[in-house]
Amino acid sequence: MKKHDQDFIRRQNRLTVFEMIKNQHPISRAAIAKRTGMSPTTVSRIVTELTEQGYLFESDQVSEGVGRKSTLLDIVSASVLSIGVELDRGHMNVGIVDLQGNLLCGGKYPRDPDESPDKTIARISEAIDGLTKLQEIDRTRIVGIGVGLPGIVNNEKGIVMFSVQLGWKNVALADRLKELTGYEVAVDNELKVKALAEHLKGVAIGSSRTALLGFGNGVGSALILEGEIYRGETNSAGEIGHTTVDPNGMMCECGKTGCLQTYINIGSLLSEANRIRPIRTIEELFEARRSGEQWAVQLIERALMYMAITVNNIVCMYNPDSVILSGELVDKIPEVYEEVEALCHSRFIWEPLRGSFAFHRSELNERGVVIGSGLLSQNRFFELS
Amino acid sequence: MKKHDQDFIRRQNRLTVFEMIKNQHPISRAAIAKRTGMSPTTVSRIVTELTEQGYLFESDQVSEGVGRKSTLLDIVSASVLSIGVELDRGHMNVGIVDLQGNLLCGGKYPRDPDESPDKTIARISEAIDGLTKLQEIDRTRIVGIGVGLPGIVNNEKGIVMFSVQLGWKNVALADRLKELTGYEVAVDNELKVKALAEHLKGVAIGSSRTALLGFGNGVGSALILEGEIYRGETNSAGEIGHTTVDPNGMMCECGKTGCLQTYINIGSLLSEANRIRPIRTIEELFEARRSGEQWAVQLIERALMYMAITVNNIVCMYNPDSVILSGELVDKIPEVYEEVEALCHSRFIWEPLRGSFAFHRSELNERGVVIGSGLLSQNRFFELS
Repeated sequence: MKKHDQDFIRRQNRLTVFEMIKNQHPISRAAIAKRTGMSPTTVSRIVTELTEQGYLFESDQVSEGVGRKSTLLDIVSASVLSIGVELDRGHMNVGIVDLQGNLLCGGKYPRDPDESPDKTIARISEAIDGLTKLQEIDRTRIVGIGVGLPGIVNNEKGIVMFSVQLGWKNVALADRLKELTGYEVAVDNELKVKALAEHLKGVAIGSSRTALLGFGNGVGSALILEGEIYRGETNSAGEIGHTTVDPNGMMCECGKTGCLQTYINIGSLLSEANRIRPIRTIEELFEARRSGEQWAVQLIERALMYMAITVNNIVCMYNPDSVILSGELVDKIPEVYEEVEALCHSRFIWEPLRGSFAFHRSELNERGVVIGSGLLSQNRFFELS
Repeated sequence: MKKHDQDFIRRQNRLTVFEMIKNQHPISRAAIAKRTGMSPTTVSRIVTELTEQGYLFESDQVSEGVGRKSTLLDIVSASVLSIGVELDRGHMNVGIVDLQGNLLCGGKYPRDPDESPDKTIARISEAIDGLTKLQEIDRTRIVGIGVGLPGIVNNEKGIVMFSVQLGWKNVALADRLKELTGYEVAVDNELKVKALAEHLKGVAIGSSRTALLGFGNGVGSALILEGEIYRGETNSAGEIGHTTVDPNGMMCECGKTGCLQTYINIGSLLSEANRIRPIRTIEELFEARRSGEQWAVQLIERALMYMAITVNNIVCMYNPDSVILSGELVDKIPEVYEEVEALCHSRFIWEPLRGSFAFHRSELNERGVVIGSGLLSQNRFFELS
């Protein structure tokens, strides 16, 4: 039951106006009033407030209707900055994101897979120091840090509950990183923030129900409903990696058999490939297929089929208007997107739902998690302020 | 982008207060103000309005705090009535539902599986006439008709897009039934309204994320998020029957192989059983298993395993707080619920999500669709009024 008291409405209206300007700038006060249904007085009050706080500026004058002129409002992109961090097994990415979701600068840092949480947290802090000094960033503009990582995250408390890829369990990441840096820290699952980034700044702008799939070292998905991340009861919604796709299938590290991830994640594919001959990277594996090695053809075709099946299963369950494929497999190997899309259209999507959604390749690619984490941190800041 | 203009807020507040009284009656004005965050003045104004319209009455006086007395508000159950209709292949159920979701009376009517839409619509209208006359129902109290059925429904326009069970395609059910009866008609997928009924009046009261599964002549699911049916882009969310659970599996009527429903829906189970010997009903099939016929043991154990896998897949995708099993297989065969629950707990739920949800058997059983359809029709009425 939502509160509809005055204070709630005031904050909600402020967010609504600000979101509209962020997404549809430049825009006039009159257009905002029309599209939100708010009174011109309310819109003007909020715009004045946001301008005084330095987030907006008045840009051009345009004619609207007969003889009337109105002033367009725009965003001061650099008025708010945040740090976006992507943590993965073998590397981390740190970047600085502005109010419009632009990545101002960033760096990629190797990470020892066995590194302790304390060590990683210290290195995030160092990377932020380095980046802000090197780029002469005004640190007073930074409103917080967002961190995206593979695994199950308690997003309210900023605790990493469980991450196979990082080898972490119950790590109070937000509290510890805040202690070191002084900034507010938001933590979330990497695919959830990536989907948010694609929804706000990437390929799914304007979508009401975006499903993003990640095919890489893990397998997962995320759903954005009306601009909000759908989290479920324990922020685990979309954990498709352990849905069962063949009860007689391979043993999964989770203790069940035939989990989706055993057929398509990079680790599983390489481990299967190494039964035949030494293969170190996913590029090598696809190269073996291109040169006609039958075992590689079979292994990859099975993986592509399961990816298409996954798209169908997501479409049947979530009935989205947009499906985005992302992850290392999609980013690095051009044929993955093309073949999965073709398989979906020719065979694997249930007939009544064909054409019910737009099919996209991730637009932000490996920048998605950093941008999404940065935007998550900004959203948190504006919701609280 | 939601409108937060005054009119929207007024209607929203009215619905919020009414919903709270419906769900938590008897309740005082002060308690409503406290729980909604609305001002006491606003709450009083809305309560006066709803009382004048005949929906509420003042019941007892109670002491709240030191020496203060406050009046409790309650619902006039019979002030609003609606017709709930369940349409299925071989029968239809029609009932009259009051404001509290009580089924006042109802009847079950056989239906010829080949009956035309016009014939069925005429028979629904006759059934309503018969029922209201027999039970001396005040027809001026009836605010509309809700119809729940298996298949894909355009709920906004009240069109049955596609129903294998009824053999219907593109039937403008709402318009045609309204023409005959004069009532507003809401149409929806049967599992969506059943989930709504269990959420509002059944086993999942108070849940924020309810997933309901239906195992019967079809296989499907529905998700209720914060009291609202999650519909997806084309009202098809939850259509798990055609998720692929074994790409090498049996041919499905949809043209794909290994769809979930080929392993667990009643038609498929009977068709498989009849390869061995004539079996006419699902009860007979389970009887064969109980008497130790090995083929029946295998067929049913495979079905139960796939049901448990389905629960896991739903839990991984939706991350609900409650899972409800429903449908003919669960209602008619006691061991289905018990064995699926045991399989889930022992093997099939991904370990990090064990204990993240409550497991329930449907409480409303075969009344669920009629009650849910009736409540859907009432919700529509109050949203518009």
